[in-house]
Amino acid sequence: MKVPLVVIVGGGFGGLAAAKELKRSPVDVLLIDRSNHHVFQPLLYQVATSVLAPGQIASSIRSLMTEQTNTTVMLGNVTGVNAASRQVIVDADDKVGIRISYDYLILATGATHSYFGHDEFAAFAPGLKSLSDAESLRNHLLDAFEKAEIEDDPDRRKALMTFVMVGAGPTGVEMASAIAVMTQTTFRKDFRRIDPKSAHIVLADMASRPLGTFSEKLSEAARQRLVSLGIDVRLGKPVQSIDGDGVIIGDERIQAKTVVWTAGVAPSPAGKWLGCTVDRAGRVRIQPDLTVPDHPDIFVVGDTASLDQNGRPLPGVAQVAMQQGRYAAKSIFRRVIGHTALPPFRYFDKGNLAVVGKNFAVLQSAGIQLSGFMAWLVWALVHIQFLAENSLRFSVLLQWAWTYVSGKRGDRLIIRKLSDS
Amino acid sequence: MKVPLVVIVGGGFGGLAAAKELKRSPVDVLLIDRSNHHVFQPLLYQVATSVLAPGQIASSIRSLMTEQTNTTVMLGNVTGVNAASRQVIVDADDKVGIRISYDYLILATGATHSYFGHDEFAAFAPGLKSLSDAESLRNHLLDAFEKAEIEDDPDRRKALMTFVMVGAGPTGVEMASAIAVMTQTTFRKDFRRIDPKSAHIVLADMASRPLGTFSEKLSEAARQRLVSLGIDVRLGKPVQSIDGDGVIIGDERIQAKTVVWTAGVAPSPAGKWLGCTVDRAGRVRIQPDLTVPDHPDIFVVGDTASLDQNGRPLPGVAQVAMQQGRYAAKSIFRRVIGHTALPPFRYFDKGNLAVVGKNFAVLQSAGIQLSGFMAWLVWALVHIQFLAENSLRFSVLLQWAWTYVSGKRGDRLIIRKLSDS
Repeated sequence: MKVPLVVIVGGGFGGLAAAKELKRSPVDVLLIDRSNHHVFQPLLYQVATSVLAPGQIASSIRSLMTEQTNTTVMLGNVTGVNAASRQVIVDADDKVGIRISYDYLILATGATHSYFGHDEFAAFAPGLKSLSDAESLRNHLLDAFEKAEIEDDPDRRKALMTFVMVGAGPTGVEMASAIAVMTQTTFRKDFRRIDPKSAHIVLADMASRPLGTFSEKLSEAARQRLVSLGIDVRLGKPVQSIDGDGVIIGDERIQAKTVVWTAGVAPSPAGKWLGCTVDRAGRVRIQPDLTVPDHPDIFVVGDTASLDQNGRPLPGVAQVAMQQGRYAAKSIFRRVIGHTALPPFRYFDKGNLAVVGKNFAVLQSAGIQLSGFMAWLVWALVHIQFLAENSLRFSVLLQWAWTYVSGKRGDRLIIRKLSDS
Repeated sequence: MKVPLVVIVGGGFGGLAAAKELKRSPVDVLLIDRSNHHVFQPLLYQVATSVLAPGQIASSIRSLMTEQTNTTVMLGNVTGVNAASRQVIVDADDKVGIRISYDYLILATGATHSYFGHDEFAAFAPGLKSLSDAESLRNHLLDAFEKAEIEDDPDRRKALMTFVMVGAGPTGVEMASAIAVMTQTTFRKDFRRIDPKSAHIVLADMASRPLGTFSEKLSEAARQRLVSLGIDVRLGKPVQSIDGDGVIIGDERIQAKTVVWTAGVAPSPAGKWLGCTVDRAGRVRIQPDLTVPDHPDIFVVGDTASLDQNGRPLPGVAQVAMQQGRYAAKSIFRRVIGHTALPPFRYFDKGNLAVVGKNFAVLQSAGIQLSGFMAWLVWALVHIQFLAENSLRFSVLLQWAWTYVSGKRGDRLIIRKLSDS
């Protein structure tokens, strides 16, 4: 009898969870990703601020799947799905349009930045989704201080030392506070002409409070902490424009050589591939069993899927993706062995965490609301625990301990091609 | 009284040693480098083969100089020297041709690849001098196996799995054996369609033996070890041509998608800046006190300097650069405080080491010749010891221990910008 082939597209939280769950299923698994590594996105901001090295938050997908002999890993870029003929279409290396037939398909293709119709912002306000994004932001941040150190013109120097985060969700809050901590600890005595502590760090959002997914009380605690770190928190006003020299927030122009896009995300084009119903953001409307209407063999999970629970859409977070990936895998297993279907998917929310600089986080979980040092400890432990490999847990823990004590950062590198003169 | 300014160009082994030695001198120091980090070049091949992360062999120069309050660090690209007016000319950020007046100048500008008049090889056979070189070689090597895994055509697959090192000095020997070890340990069970162990690794050199700076006995021991690792060692024949599909060695064409240039180096343009006498390779002919003839205030040290000792030119190795950097600094210190001049520079050769894969190195020091496991232990200890910071020593030691035991590599990442489709 032919062994069914499960094709999983995407090696993020959802796809990887699905692949691992299928380890002992009587199926073959093909896991396709555009990049050769799984990234722990919640810590990308620490790569961007020189604390962690890229390799400390990323693992080779191939290496993660070595022992899982029913699984093949493929580096390729999926460009479409032909649901009628049950095929995914992949570009790999110089081969365009390879067709791969599946018995079951799990689309876990995630999300990318959304500039809400202002794609012209992209060139001036990069986002933070991949290791490449984090490395170029790291280069840019370090370079800004190097340039400020040799700049004589006070206005240009000020623009070089102004950093604007657009979007006060977890990523914006974490980036802004990480830059503040960097200027106050690591950089403190490193420059001779500029005072890194005088950096102007702006966190802007249209919303009236930061960390909107948290309670008002925790938002306020986070806001106070941000202010005490010296961050200029600007709420309730839209960012009207972004160019190479700064931003306009509300009706005020701020000259800034660094703007980071920490606002919206847009789903992958999975909805377009399938030609199915999508929500307002473009995410695939899936059924309670995570399949696409009329396509019981296609599951869509994670940030690119849209599913309501208790009348509200599930958030685009790692936990949802992982639980959905595992559910899809279990569901396929039961169908393959001829078992009854699972009850509809239910997301179990373990809670919500965001860190604000050193020694401070906010935590909201099962009725508990906590801010401060204890929440920060929980944050650290949870993030260590969710890394993909033991070796990374050990390495990140050591790095954090060292940076915590010494104030130094291990990856303070501007890496770029030097032209030989 | 005005404090004399010592300008040091280059934060490699020579420049950094000079800067550190001037810590307690009554001078101001300006250390200029094109990149923001000091790289431990002898371990670049381990970054290229995914064992170490860039941050494990590199340190922020600014961070290394934090406590040294008489020293200012500048990120800039020196483009010339005006010896008559005692000025260096620097491009930094968008400022072209900044002129900085010095009282003493130490040029420690190192070397880059030399294609011996075949600059057209550069596009197809990159070298290994910077972190950027090492990262792109890492991306390329990992990518070659990913591409081979999805390649159906046997000839193309073979070319993807053929790796040619041009030049059998230490870098070539180390790269070739590191690739061999990677295919035999880390990659062993990771692919489903290709057998990584079948990779064809070629080490080519015009010379009749590898590691020409070692004794014939050690060269032969290294050669045997290379062969036992499955490496195709091709000696005594020149590389006639390199293109995007392979190389011609002697009169045989080898199809290969990866060619690494591990042969010659060319000095920085310091000689051109000074308009002084250079040797055949273009290195500045310096005097026994390391200054340039007629310019007692200009020292040239390291790979870009040419000095004979016992009738033979000093080799372009880290030890020479470090000893020369320290000598130049001491010499300046004595002149500033009005002390007598130092005796002429003498290089003290502590010995020579090269590693050939796992558990094997060759060592030649003060009449001792050693090959095998003991030499490998010495190699590891010496390299750990010469890293610039304690934190790196600790981190590299742990990483090596982990890779040694598990066979896994911590930095198996292809990092590149993904285009959103």
